[in-house]
Amino acid sequence: MSASPYAQLEQEWRRLHAFHGALALLRWDAAVMMPRGSADVRGEQLAALETEHHALLTTPKITRLLDRAQANSQGLEDWQLANLREMRRQRDHAIATPVTLISRLARATARAEVYWAEARRQNSFELFAPHLEEVVHLVRDKAALLGQALGLAPYFALVDEFSPGVSTADVDAIFKALSRRLPGLIREALTLQAEHPPLPIAGKFALGKQRALVVEVMRAIGFPFDKGRLDESEHPFTEGVPGDIRVTTRFDGGDLFTGLFGAMHESGHAMYDLGLPQAWRDQPVGRDRGMALEESQALLLEMFIGRSRAFVTYLRPLLEKQFAVSGPEWEPANLYSWLTRVQRSLIRVDADELTYPLHILLRYELEKKLLTGELAVRDLPDAWNSGMEQRLEVRPTGANDGCLQDIHWALGSFGYFPSYVLGGVIAAQLWESLRTDLPELDAQIARGEFSGLFTWLREHVHSLGAKVTVKELMKHATRQPLSANALLRYLEQKYLESRP
Amino acid sequence: MSASPYAQLEQEWRRLHAFHGALALLRWDAAVMMPRGSADVRGEQLAALETEHHALLTTPKITRLLDRAQANSQGLEDWQLANLREMRRQRDHAIATPVTLISRLARATARAEVYWAEARRQNSFELFAPHLEEVVHLVRDKAALLGQALGLAPYFALVDEFSPGVSTADVDAIFKALSRRLPGLIREALTLQAEHPPLPIAGKFALGKQRALVVEVMRAIGFPFDKGRLDESEHPFTEGVPGDIRVTTRFDGGDLFTGLFGAMHESGHAMYDLGLPQAWRDQPVGRDRGMALEESQALLLEMFIGRSRAFVTYLRPLLEKQFAVSGPEWEPANLYSWLTRVQRSLIRVDADELTYPLHILLRYELEKKLLTGELAVRDLPDAWNSGMEQRLEVRPTGANDGCLQDIHWALGSFGYFPSYVLGGVIAAQLWESLRTDLPELDAQIARGEFSGLFTWLREHVHSLGAKVTVKELMKHATRQPLSANALLRYLEQKYLESRP
Repeated sequence: MSASPYAQLEQEWRRLHAFHGALALLRWDAAVMMPRGSADVRGEQLAALETEHHALLTTPKITRLLDRAQANSQGLEDWQLANLREMRRQRDHAIATPVTLISRLARATARAEVYWAEARRQNSFELFAPHLEEVVHLVRDKAALLGQALGLAPYFALVDEFSPGVSTADVDAIFKALSRRLPGLIREALTLQAEHPPLPIAGKFALGKQRALVVEVMRAIGFPFDKGRLDESEHPFTEGVPGDIRVTTRFDGGDLFTGLFGAMHESGHAMYDLGLPQAWRDQPVGRDRGMALEESQALLLEMFIGRSRAFVTYLRPLLEKQFAVSGPEWEPANLYSWLTRVQRSLIRVDADELTYPLHILLRYELEKKLLTGELAVRDLPDAWNSGMEQRLEVRPTGANDGCLQDIHWALGSFGYFPSYVLGGVIAAQLWESLRTDLPELDAQIARGEFSGLFTWLREHVHSLGAKVTVKELMKHATRQPLSANALLRYLEQKYLESRP
Repeated sequence: MSASPYAQLEQEWRRLHAFHGALALLRWDAAVMMPRGSADVRGEQLAALETEHHALLTTPKITRLLDRAQANSQGLEDWQLANLREMRRQRDHAIATPVTLISRLARATARAEVYWAEARRQNSFELFAPHLEEVVHLVRDKAALLGQALGLAPYFALVDEFSPGVSTADVDAIFKALSRRLPGLIREALTLQAEHPPLPIAGKFALGKQRALVVEVMRAIGFPFDKGRLDESEHPFTEGVPGDIRVTTRFDGGDLFTGLFGAMHESGHAMYDLGLPQAWRDQPVGRDRGMALEESQALLLEMFIGRSRAFVTYLRPLLEKQFAVSGPEWEPANLYSWLTRVQRSLIRVDADELTYPLHILLRYELEKKLLTGELAVRDLPDAWNSGMEQRLEVRPTGANDGCLQDIHWALGSFGYFPSYVLGGVIAAQLWESLRTDLPELDAQIARGEFSGLFTWLREHVHSLGAKVTVKELMKHATRQPLSANALLRYLEQKYLESRP
């Protein structure tokens, strides 16, 4: 007797999962280990494996098996049904975009990435513009095809790839609430801060000791160094599969916190991935539930916990041990004020929690207009600069601290930015529930104990994999629908409390 | 108009080449970077990609294209014809072994490798024997099928995978000549050595400085660190593809030369791979011409050059710079005597040039008998021990310094050992031609100049890729047929010369 269509599909996805893991290693190596002159060779390897992965995912055989499994789904359990739904979702996304478009997009983004870097070296948007234009055209085609296939508006078909099941209305409502309240909140926080400005923290911090500190914190968090690695790269990232998960950070000899919080952010991703359901680890339902949820787990650790009074209590003695710090600026109250200072700044990745959503809102509005054609690529710098002025009252001095600062669009990642804000929204809702369910959480974190935190997260988030949608997960875990309310409550409480 | 069958084949092999490169990276990472607990995950990835590679190589489409290209080969150039021949060779090898046998062999060798390591921990052959037995059975089946398909005797069908085009008669003639002359030569060399024994060299050598020394030597050799890496692993190896080539070595704090000569051996492999014809780099004809030729390039650098008076002249000041060495044992003449000392020893990888071929001869005879069934696995230790006594006048004290010392058979690599000796034979012939064609070679090497050497090797060996057979290459490059004569001349001259 031959295996059932569903069982055959699981077998097919086991193979796809191995490809997925091999691709992850090739990308990790390219960013961390690969010699500089080997980029072309690696590009060919990635392209070949991605093409093969796409081909395996879109064969008529998969479609036939999916149809037959769905027609005979009465005997399947919950997890299997959810798995079948996710298989179909992966296949639908893959098949909507023809291979020719994928490979044109791959070539265009490879070129755009090179010219983005060159344009940054020369601080000149003009060099990048024609290549961005080409990418925008191709992404527009892709969005139209995806939208048609998925029954979504083109831009939201792209968002769906990163944050499945979150609707236009959800995203718009969240951004509306944030843009209504944040400008005032930022003003109030800055006024309060001006009354008690934190003493600046600076110094020279040996990289070896910084690494030792980060490893100690990651061990406390529970990162399994026998199934993962910590390395360095230009931009921090997490790659790999549960069972071999690799995080990177970037150390800065003059700023102790760049490396630490970079590693904490990535450890948040890694702990999520490591907590995914082991029994389904090589199946679609065993994967993470999209970038918004990924980001929520990273932000919880980096921002909600990492920049809390409890964490500062835990961190202070470690800093003393590694760097023998002393003086008033290193006192816990000042350390906390320093780590939570608010600033109207130009660069997204350096922004604080309070101003960050406005950086994203700008990108969200601009990328939608780029795709509809309402905004021409050549007009992007002006639109960016006036948008920054209007929302954050700062104006870029050039392209590098303006619309050239992010690599996302060069890579064709349109529809990705909203997941950063959705991540914050999700994190805030989870944070409220966590604090209700775990009254001892602060005390535990102050002692460097993270097991309570992760037991809760595993139960309510990680172990669900992709079984439920983000919105269902939120309802179960937080007893609230997805909205900006919890994030705004969190920000008000944190940034309007009287200091020190 | 669609592409010609031949052009389509090149396209197919471009994809196979990308898989080959991805697999190389996965293996490199497993040995150098991977966390210890991630072996299972990596095993699945390797198995999936290898299976896919095998499937792509053995589709009916490839067979059809090969047939059509061969029927219409009149318009093809030399290189293309050679490429077609190598494509056919790869496909014939791959298709001769059914997928079920390949996967049984993969599982059996994975298990045997684990038990080999465990047996070594307990210095007990019994633990390993049943697993070796299973491997022998499966390799026997594979050899029979391969032999049938290629029209070769079963064992030599295996040899053909590693050293293509070298016949039974060639190998037997070479081993016969070596076994006739070497025992006497060893005796004479030991007598001479006893008259002037070298002063022993020992000490503590900081690993960081050892690494700096190795990097300096590799830079002098011409290793391109922008397209390759040097790392550490338990056993030195070379992995990757031209354009991203990675060598490893193993440093020993108490022995300066382990790390250096390990790296030189691997750099020999790497320089060969880097010198392969760039225009054919993703095609079968652009690959190396098998393990025997690979080994010849490694031995040329490690032994013929690395353990020469000229190289000692170059090396001595570097040792002084890094380690401030001084004293009579570090004088060039003693250094040379120490690096070329002869010893009847039990362990192959520690053996000198003179005794090494006898270690291989023993393995060659035993593995042939294991495959025919003439020797039972349970009788292997006795056969090994008496073989060592008979050939090298030393007797193992246990399994670890006896038949458990090599991992090859556990991995199913039967037919591989002869390539070590063939590599020495080829290296010696090339060495004679090199010295005739480049009278300045010694003087150059003494100054740390390796460009003359590699210009010659590129022209006569590397740039040919797999265009000609090993035997054709030898005739062109050395004007001699493949034989043990040059190796015996080299060994006699080097080990029977009068020493200070």
